[in-house]
Amino acid sequence: MNFAVLGTGTVGRTVAARLHELGHHVVIGTRDPEATRARSGDGSFASWADEHPGIGLAPFAEAAASAAIVVNASSGGASLEVLGEAGAANLDGKVLIDIANPLDFSDGMPPTLLYCNTDSLGERIQHAFPGTRVVKTLNTLTAELMVRPGSLPEGTSVFVSGDDPEAKATAAALLKEFGHTDVIDLGDISTARGTEMLLPVWLRLWGALGSPMFNLKVVR
Amino acid sequence: MNFAVLGTGTVGRTVAARLHELGHHVVIGTRDPEATRARSGDGSFASWADEHPGIGLAPFAEAAASAAIVVNASSGGASLEVLGEAGAANLDGKVLIDIANPLDFSDGMPPTLLYCNTDSLGERIQHAFPGTRVVKTLNTLTAELMVRPGSLPEGTSVFVSGDDPEAKATAAALLKEFGHTDVIDLGDISTARGTEMLLPVWLRLWGALGSPMFNLKVVR
Repeated sequence: MNFAVLGTGTVGRTVAARLHELGHHVVIGTRDPEATRARSGDGSFASWADEHPGIGLAPFAEAAASAAIVVNASSGGASLEVLGEAGAANLDGKVLIDIANPLDFSDGMPPTLLYCNTDSLGERIQHAFPGTRVVKTLNTLTAELMVRPGSLPEGTSVFVSGDDPEAKATAAALLKEFGHTDVIDLGDISTARGTEMLLPVWLRLWGALGSPMFNLKVVR
Repeated sequence: MNFAVLGTGTVGRTVAARLHELGHHVVIGTRDPEATRARSGDGSFASWADEHPGIGLAPFAEAAASAAIVVNASSGGASLEVLGEAGAANLDGKVLIDIANPLDFSDGMPPTLLYCNTDSLGERIQHAFPGTRVVKTLNTLTAELMVRPGSLPEGTSVFVSGDDPEAKATAAALLKEFGHTDVIDLGDISTARGTEMLLPVWLRLWGALGSPMFNLKVVR
């Protein structure tokens, strides 16, 4: 399957590398590939890309155009702008897996949410791109566990929210490829409010446990 | 130990009955005990009280005055008023276990939160009653599982938030009496934002699973 992963940060790199490892064709989208490649040093995209040959890098629009499934791994506050650069025409009819959180760091740590309770990033994206089939998922755990949940000592839960049942089935199949065993369909895209609002307790759990290597299991 | 449980609804009744069963002295607080007793029929307090002799019923202030530990099991939107009726003097120096959620049902189902993200009910209570040692806990699961988590097939997690370490230790000891095995201290009372903001996904999980008999386990 052809994937575009929008975003060159830790989340985007981790998801892209795992998709590539699973045999998918992956292009990472960025605003300006030359600028992204030009940044150097430890943790730079260039040094990561050297270790991950076979993963493409292209402008957002070109990456989205090349893909059947697009993953939004940009930072939540920039996601609508990033998707606008990707272009509605390049996203039309496609499954968009939105794993971003609308975190607001402007008042320091811990961040708050840019919007919540009566709104969510997932809904804003679906509303801005009505021809795209948005599925909110994977925004409730750290990048490494998104794609390799088997690192934890037992199975845990992930959630999908979206208006299109077929798109949610596509996302769920991908989650199972990653190793997830309990995928819970919460309902339409407005249920993304619930998973985005998990972030405050998730961030506090990270603090309390001293590590982001945890996930929630819905025991029933 | 002497407990006051403020609130005559399902949550208050369930917690009061369990505390009584564990050998504690329990008085339920209500605005007007005569009015509470006068309501009749299925599910009425009177019919419940008949099956639970030994649990007292008193006005909020009297109930709070009689107790070493006060449990706020009132509906979240009314909690500050209820605690005001209980009286700051009757709450002073005491551990107040706040298990309420500030749900707003005014726009129908599912409810939203009256405040969140930069505020929480737990914080508002601590701010309004600075002499009281507020611990937010147990607001993340259904009443029956608050007090009998062993009904689930495996151990799950509960959280405590509060500014006073000794009060949190008191609450944690009570949680263990109830049967909880994984009590996670999230930090000061502002971390109640995180657990109160769990409500939207909790409510959607109830819908998706068809039952409120579930809880989260933090797998790490």
